[in-house]
Amino acid sequence: MIMTMSRVAELLMSEDNYLILTHRRPDGDTIGSGAALCRLLRACGKTAYLHNNEDFTAKYEFLYDGLTAPEGFEPAKIVTVDIADTALLPTSAEHLAGDVFLCIDHHSSNTNYAQNSYVDSGCCAVGEILFALINELGGELTQEIATAIYVAISTDTGCFRYANTTANCHIIAAACIEKDIECYWLNKMLFETKTRARFNVERFVFEHLQILCDGKVAIVAITIDDTKRFDANQDDLENLSNIPRQIEGVECAVIMTQTDSENYKVSVRTSDLLNASEICAQFGGGGHKNAAGCTLRMSADEAVAKIEQTVSKALGECVAD
Amino acid sequence: MIMTMSRVAELLMSEDNYLILTHRRPDGDTIGSGAALCRLLRACGKTAYLHNNEDFTAKYEFLYDGLTAPEGFEPAKIVTVDIADTALLPTSAEHLAGDVFLCIDHHSSNTNYAQNSYVDSGCCAVGEILFALINELGGELTQEIATAIYVAISTDTGCFRYANTTANCHIIAAACIEKDIECYWLNKMLFETKTRARFNVERFVFEHLQILCDGKVAIVAITIDDTKRFDANQDDLENLSNIPRQIEGVECAVIMTQTDSENYKVSVRTSDLLNASEICAQFGGGGHKNAAGCTLRMSADEAVAKIEQTVSKALGECVAD
Repeated sequence: MIMTMSRVAELLMSEDNYLILTHRRPDGDTIGSGAALCRLLRACGKTAYLHNNEDFTAKYEFLYDGLTAPEGFEPAKIVTVDIADTALLPTSAEHLAGDVFLCIDHHSSNTNYAQNSYVDSGCCAVGEILFALINELGGELTQEIATAIYVAISTDTGCFRYANTTANCHIIAAACIEKDIECYWLNKMLFETKTRARFNVERFVFEHLQILCDGKVAIVAITIDDTKRFDANQDDLENLSNIPRQIEGVECAVIMTQTDSENYKVSVRTSDLLNASEICAQFGGGGHKNAAGCTLRMSADEAVAKIEQTVSKALGECVAD
Repeated sequence: MIMTMSRVAELLMSEDNYLILTHRRPDGDTIGSGAALCRLLRACGKTAYLHNNEDFTAKYEFLYDGLTAPEGFEPAKIVTVDIADTALLPTSAEHLAGDVFLCIDHHSSNTNYAQNSYVDSGCCAVGEILFALINELGGELTQEIATAIYVAISTDTGCFRYANTTANCHIIAAACIEKDIECYWLNKMLFETKTRARFNVERFVFEHLQILCDGKVAIVAITIDDTKRFDANQDDLENLSNIPRQIEGVECAVIMTQTDSENYKVSVRTSDLLNASEICAQFGGGGHKNAAGCTLRMSADEAVAKIEQTVSKALGECVAD
């Protein structure tokens, strides 16, 4: 049975003393939605805090600042936002996995781990669900909530570019901007700023990208030594596959990041011509049709050759179809 | 006297046989707005064509296809869209400069060259004006017009990222998407696809970018030989300053493109700390506060040194302020 939005509002109003959990390696949607829910509950007279996720980075401090739980806070009810599976809980919240009162999510892969779940996979972001919840709770779209929801929606849609962008995403963005949020500053910070480390990593990708299989495959391997040399953190290594993926004619973009002396984490992005999940399944990995991953226990050169061979075969099969 | 939108509608309805002009090196706004206006006028029973701009490229063919004037068409009235000055007319339309019936534009620098001008610099794109004109003319937002207006607005706002993005831009985008336009395909094609030549040019910029003045200035020179080697056309060389501009700490991004054996076209982008127009004015150029240009008649090394010296001085002055 699918829960209605009014039932979500009813549940939230029936309890108090909430702790809101965001996911491991939190992004704009989990933090933005968490912050929006926390402020909304407070405006409704509830006590609510964001769990102090150890993976929070300075980038989103403007969202969680003043909302994280003080030491010793004893929550009565746990709510998760944008968390499809308890495996995605940050380490410091793993002990709460069996005790989630309400899960608000937009992943169709949600494992239904909570006592109550509101999952709408038609929404571009959990922020879109939160926007609807404001009305349901009779709350107000304050400037702070508008900022949080704008971040949630704009980051999960790649600033209104991805396939999940709907008319409603734009309608919500308009409502947020009408609250005089710092839209330009947000866009510049979220989408148009690179650290020096990130710039150096991207330069490395541009310089070392191998374009194979008649221009259809683009692949690069980044060693631990490279990462150290650039002083790059996890954020600096994210979404690097966008660089090869955007090249005209590339059907399969592969970024291989060395995780220890023997292993490469392989991230595969494909056009609709190829199935990334099937490619990765051959190496014990998996994922979605256009985005999947696996781990290869070999040298970079061997890994490149292995991937090239596999993708080349898949390409041959799709041409033969 | 500022013309009202209803006066624009009245003027357009009072005449017939329109030729619509787009600007030299046309972008998404001038072509999108031109196409939308052409279709709108036709829906109102008028004969209207787009001028066959010799600078049209295949990229936007889906917009102007079927709308360009057949040989021998004798227009009664000329309308320009997104053209601030007759100097921006394509060569093949220069002879029409003194004969423009109506100009629809959003540049505050518009030189008022037309018999009638509707200029709203508060609009992110001329596409935003066209959207309002549909209502005024009692027209319908068809899927084809929605596509043209979406292209106009999304390209002129950098896909809803630039400072000119308003709530109204998003409201219009939502209205267009509700007409089932191919939004994802458009976004991918407009914002997420690079030709091999563009990729090679970007790789060159990454490899050769000089970061000077304690990380505040980033500068690169591209010779004619480089451009030829990459088989790059004008589109492939556009907006390259985005690469250095996005690096954290960079206050001044400079791209120098060699135009002939003796000259470099210099494009300067600055943060709010520096005035690009003042920097370029020292070399006989000009532009806006954050985006300006000039021409330097010297070698690449001399030009880099000259710009470094000038920006360094400007930085010193703003630190001293």
